[in-house]
Amino acid sequence: AQKFSGGIGSKLCGGLKRRASLPPDLLPALDGDVKTLSFLQEVVDILLSYVVESFDRSTKVIDFHYPNELLQRNNWELSDQPETLDEILLSCRATLKYAIKTGTPLPAPQPGPEPQPGSEPHLSPGRFTYEVAPVFVLLEYVTLKKMREIIGWQDGRGDGIFSPGGAISNMYAMLLARFKMFPEVKEKGMCSVPRLAAFTSEHSHFSIKKGAAALGIGTESVICIKADERGKMIPSDLEKRILEAKQKGFVPFFVSATAGTTVYGAFDPLIAIADICKKYNIWMHVDGAWGGSLLMSRKHRWKLNGVERANSMTWNPHKMMAVPLQCSALLVREEGLMQSCNQMHAVYLFQQDKHYDLSYDTGDKALQCGRHVDIFKLWLMWRAKGTIGFEAQIDKCLELSEYLYNKIKDREGYQMVFDGKPQHTNVCFWYLPPGVRYMEDKVERMKRLHKVAPVIKARMMEYGTTMVSYQPQGDKVNFFRMVISNPAATFEDIDFLIEEIERLGQDL
Amino acid sequence: AQKFSGGIGSKLCGGLKRRASLPPDLLPALDGDVKTLSFLQEVVDILLSYVVESFDRSTKVIDFHYPNELLQRNNWELSDQPETLDEILLSCRATLKYAIKTGTPLPAPQPGPEPQPGSEPHLSPGRFTYEVAPVFVLLEYVTLKKMREIIGWQDGRGDGIFSPGGAISNMYAMLLARFKMFPEVKEKGMCSVPRLAAFTSEHSHFSIKKGAAALGIGTESVICIKADERGKMIPSDLEKRILEAKQKGFVPFFVSATAGTTVYGAFDPLIAIADICKKYNIWMHVDGAWGGSLLMSRKHRWKLNGVERANSMTWNPHKMMAVPLQCSALLVREEGLMQSCNQMHAVYLFQQDKHYDLSYDTGDKALQCGRHVDIFKLWLMWRAKGTIGFEAQIDKCLELSEYLYNKIKDREGYQMVFDGKPQHTNVCFWYLPPGVRYMEDKVERMKRLHKVAPVIKARMMEYGTTMVSYQPQGDKVNFFRMVISNPAATFEDIDFLIEEIERLGQDL
Repeated sequence: AQKFSGGIGSKLCGGLKRRASLPPDLLPALDGDVKTLSFLQEVVDILLSYVVESFDRSTKVIDFHYPNELLQRNNWELSDQPETLDEILLSCRATLKYAIKTGTPLPAPQPGPEPQPGSEPHLSPGRFTYEVAPVFVLLEYVTLKKMREIIGWQDGRGDGIFSPGGAISNMYAMLLARFKMFPEVKEKGMCSVPRLAAFTSEHSHFSIKKGAAALGIGTESVICIKADERGKMIPSDLEKRILEAKQKGFVPFFVSATAGTTVYGAFDPLIAIADICKKYNIWMHVDGAWGGSLLMSRKHRWKLNGVERANSMTWNPHKMMAVPLQCSALLVREEGLMQSCNQMHAVYLFQQDKHYDLSYDTGDKALQCGRHVDIFKLWLMWRAKGTIGFEAQIDKCLELSEYLYNKIKDREGYQMVFDGKPQHTNVCFWYLPPGVRYMEDKVERMKRLHKVAPVIKARMMEYGTTMVSYQPQGDKVNFFRMVISNPAATFEDIDFLIEEIERLGQDL
Repeated sequence: AQKFSGGIGSKLCGGLKRRASLPPDLLPALDGDVKTLSFLQEVVDILLSYVVESFDRSTKVIDFHYPNELLQRNNWELSDQPETLDEILLSCRATLKYAIKTGTPLPAPQPGPEPQPGSEPHLSPGRFTYEVAPVFVLLEYVTLKKMREIIGWQDGRGDGIFSPGGAISNMYAMLLARFKMFPEVKEKGMCSVPRLAAFTSEHSHFSIKKGAAALGIGTESVICIKADERGKMIPSDLEKRILEAKQKGFVPFFVSATAGTTVYGAFDPLIAIADICKKYNIWMHVDGAWGGSLLMSRKHRWKLNGVERANSMTWNPHKMMAVPLQCSALLVREEGLMQSCNQMHAVYLFQQDKHYDLSYDTGDKALQCGRHVDIFKLWLMWRAKGTIGFEAQIDKCLELSEYLYNKIKDREGYQMVFDGKPQHTNVCFWYLPPGVRYMEDKVERMKRLHKVAPVIKARMMEYGTTMVSYQPQGDKVNFFRMVISNPAATFEDIDFLIEEIERLGQDL
């Protein structure tokens, strides 16, 4: 079977037959209700019997197997092709079979929630050790490796973790970069370290500054690099600012390039940035919280060319891959670094005299202690869709946004915020109601235009028909930012959006 | 109706009639299967129709109401008494009615996951603003206020957040303490701040050191205070170490007292610690991740006397209150501080020209951007059980652990790790198999005993019958730590545990 992974993805473009990623009669298909509900009901039935079984004192608390053995007992791998719905049900059963029965009334590791209103009738283990979450530890292992292969790191080597969101993933990256350069900071704190400088584009996500504030680096040490008119970091400005910072006595330690900025959906030029990071020996992080998922698309992954040279990458399946919140991965190229950076060796959690391979006790590399199980939904979706299913979904969203772009770029009353086809699904535009469109006084016109998007959005919310974000950016007054991440949308839905904007905004 | 809250809880001890917190015929009742399953099936039916409804393009994306109006449209309050199961179903319906339909194919805020294998058929909004999560923002508001009332802060005033676990809550507290004393640290970093010192007991959770490492304070700046033989911080040693640190030029800024230590379940003497913090003007944090829930019990809340004097408190409903992972709250006495400490004013998220009261856009005080919805399960459980339901559950767990303690304290072959009745449900003990029990050579005996618990636990896991944690502590060799947090356990289950230990360990 052909592999779909890594930097070689592009070679395979013609090699794989596309097919629908999910049985075509499930929702969002028209009249997909019955099939969808009966499938979901089967899942529910599995969960309900699990609840009852957990409460039966003759049920084992754990069906224990050593890590290597458990890897063999079931096929946990992620592949290009989707599985059938029956196979998905089997995966659910296997997961429950080998997981700890945290609902058992028998003496067992906490937390042991009883099934009851408000508690999800499924598994709720903390995930710091293999013994309390054997299946989920393996699923994380399999999935992170797959994601690293897709980034293009050799044999999927490296490290990683699922964290509570992209902001925290970015903070992890900054923490690792600092530790890599100055390992003494862990014990001695920032007073043992020279003044640091981090670099990111002026269009980057606010979490880079938030992280710097939290880590004791300070927001003033985050130097904002100019972006071009499309929102991409300008590499020559990056180099200039690095040199300036060095001259002022700062030590540049971290560059965060953005793959898919929040507002414009821009992709920073990763190859040029990687060259600069290499030249000055700076940790290169790619914040692909929003745009990282384009790696799953053979058509669009070129936008992240160079990502394989990064030291770390944030990638949020809970955005473009439509996994329910929260599901964010930090991927790290160097093995072992997270562990040395974060481990505290708490003997009451990470006993060294256990009877299985302790490399599966992955908890001590996290900032968290117990962690929410974010992996299962991603893993199960991947099994259900296959890599090509995610690809189809992403390609569809980009196609929809291109449709929107083509529809409005020359349409009367619209103005694009930047020229050219959007690289991600962000379409940024102004709608100018007739009363604003022909105003002579430019200052007054901008003042009026600034108020248009907020009013239209407020009206949308009151009617409840649709919702679109808006914001200003730099010296640009409020504009709409339509972001498409649900592939169930149709061209007609886009048409409807335009009609709504005009219906709700024409009197402004 | 009598209120159950705050420091006055103890006065009400005799005032409220106890009754079962859940319909007594639901699980864990014997033969509770049918009733439980039919109730859960009703919940599932609500969710399934919601899935179908979300996919219908004639469904509104949002049924918008201004915050004050939404507060009025439904009873969202938490009370002492449980609701009926029918009322719980109504609460589920109301939540879905007013929440954003994130599954809609219509243009709407991301994330918009489609219902599919692996996605939970419920709501998945990020929670940074009221407009994307109106109901959950209100539920957080109501619940955090209630928790602050129970701590004993006047009228429930203060601030707080649900964070991804106790370790992160503790890190938030340290971050706030630093910012309170040196607000310039946010912009200028730790180089603008003198050398800081934090204090916590030698039995405290490792997350205090982990937080100090991450925040750039350094683990060496965390000074471990001696604990007494029961595991409680010794206040005189705290004061001594504060003075020492000051003499060495450190600025003491943070004391983390523990309410319910991980291993012994000890409660630090909060009143004495509060006096010292006041004297030296140090931020007092209470890490009640494990023991905080005892505030819900009129019988046991005295163990946290003094907590109302803390500046912040970590309290994890996902532990003793049996809410599924993750559900951790950080409560803060001072209003507005979290906002000033963490806000970055990202204009693309926190527009200031929106049409509703912006104090409900609570996202900018978090380190995260989008957050997992942790509130709903806690809120719904609280409605289903009432405060007295949580109380009954906690009292039951403590009763079970007292039963275990009484059973083994004088039993042949057992030795308690510390004297006296445990304050929490942690029961720490050694089991000495006959072959070890009578060994003369003390050194050899300890060496053998150190290996007993790991082997018994490994055997438990292979049989799958039960699981108990063990660890060493200081100079004490490996001992069992039985922690009871599932009130569905019975005295017979405890008897069974003892039998298992003896069955699996007698040959060692």
